[in-house]
Amino acid sequence: MTMETDLALANALADAAGAAIRPYFRGAFGLETKDDASPVTLADRAAEEVMRKLLASEAPRDGIIGEEFGSERADASRVWVLDPIDGTTSFVAGRPIFGTLIALLQDGWPVLGIIDQPIAGERWVGAIGQPTTFNGAPARTRGCRALDDAVLGTTSPHLFSAHEADHFLSLASKVARRRIIYGGDCYNYGLVASGHVDLVVEAGLKLHDFAALVPVIEGAGGMVCDWSGHVLNAHSGGDVIALGDPARLDDVLEALGHANCG
Amino acid sequence: MTMETDLALANALADAAGAAIRPYFRGAFGLETKDDASPVTLADRAAEEVMRKLLASEAPRDGIIGEEFGSERADASRVWVLDPIDGTTSFVAGRPIFGTLIALLQDGWPVLGIIDQPIAGERWVGAIGQPTTFNGAPARTRGCRALDDAVLGTTSPHLFSAHEADHFLSLASKVARRRIIYGGDCYNYGLVASGHVDLVVEAGLKLHDFAALVPVIEGAGGMVCDWSGHVLNAHSGGDVIALGDPARLDDVLEALGHANCG
Repeated sequence: MTMETDLALANALADAAGAAIRPYFRGAFGLETKDDASPVTLADRAAEEVMRKLLASEAPRDGIIGEEFGSERADASRVWVLDPIDGTTSFVAGRPIFGTLIALLQDGWPVLGIIDQPIAGERWVGAIGQPTTFNGAPARTRGCRALDDAVLGTTSPHLFSAHEADHFLSLASKVARRRIIYGGDCYNYGLVASGHVDLVVEAGLKLHDFAALVPVIEGAGGMVCDWSGHVLNAHSGGDVIALGDPARLDDVLEALGHANCG
Repeated sequence: MTMETDLALANALADAAGAAIRPYFRGAFGLETKDDASPVTLADRAAEEVMRKLLASEAPRDGIIGEEFGSERADASRVWVLDPIDGTTSFVAGRPIFGTLIALLQDGWPVLGIIDQPIAGERWVGAIGQPTTFNGAPARTRGCRALDDAVLGTTSPHLFSAHEADHFLSLASKVARRRIIYGGDCYNYGLVASGHVDLVVEAGLKLHDFAALVPVIEGAGGMVCDWSGHVLNAHSGGDVIALGDPARLDDVLEALGHANCG
């Protein structure tokens, strides 16, 4: 397959997932119980099912790793990684800052990624060797002269182990407090690609949480790595740094205390 | 003035603020410096200026307390309280979950409130004795059977003093971790009024941060009070509890350890 074919398929996956998710957003949460039939679970499953169905017909030999329904042919050279709703807590709370994540791995390396926000109608698309787009227009990260100029995002203080939290707080102390945003999940990474956020630092992410972010941010001029500065692939741990301006990497690693929590 | 006149004026204020703010959202942040001319400061000032201008022509005897330009006739019986951009950090980061807050105080008591999100086009309007609306349709909070069923929101762990943080964490430990949302500022309170979020607990808020929330949430069936359970007025401290289901108040106060941080 060519990259154009793959991009068309990835966009079709995102379209299908969004159509499956939208009816459940801000739905009948008053009736929600903790059983498996909560609206967010229904939306999650419905979106992954339509994506798997499309992949079965359009790319039957490719592998699939999905957040909801596990792996098929995960040892194939081409593997699609699907997270139908990244940011389930925001989804449950009715906040349109969750996203659908779609990545294509080639021999374990993410070569294509989509971050899609189906309520606001916002889509970031990245692919190796191509400029990242936001709703079809080029997206670029911005320069960042120093950490105390940075807008820093992280989803929740509960992402971190006690050890990781110490390192994160060491980094956060270098950033102006009024420039730290909480919440946001994958949406914050899209905002890095578009040059509104400079830095996202998280831990405990799964492959389906981070695979799509890499091509999106790298194709926009930024970088994504683990807390030791290593690039991410299918075997990486869940500690993630996303930087709009790669020139700040040493400052970030230094502020994190060269932590190796991978 | 009748409440209808006041509501029409309040809606006009929100319209004018939104029109002033939108051009600055996701603007040329690459050029942002820390001086006073940052886009968020320009947007904040432009929005408060247009609202003050409208009040000067439509309600010249009413007082005004604004976040950006201070107080005029703050001892009048009718005082408008304006926060052009609540959630400046989300605004700076390009996240459409900030809001414009407009309240009318009568003898120090909030009798009318608006939470407006001008990018998504979402507006909650509350007034004493009337049902709260979301984009013109009735908004209702939802019931909550127990704290461990609740969706709990708070903007940032940095809102709290060390003492307050201990109390907040005591409350958070009663809630399922995957149901705690961070970030969101006034937007989370709107989501309480619409029945998607059950509980917001914050501290360090100013009058312009909390005055508008009270009529919005109370008119939707919920309640807003301080950490001691007292209703809020112009003289309240900045510790705030917003509850969709007032039947959970004792549970919340108990979980907060009956803290009195006002």
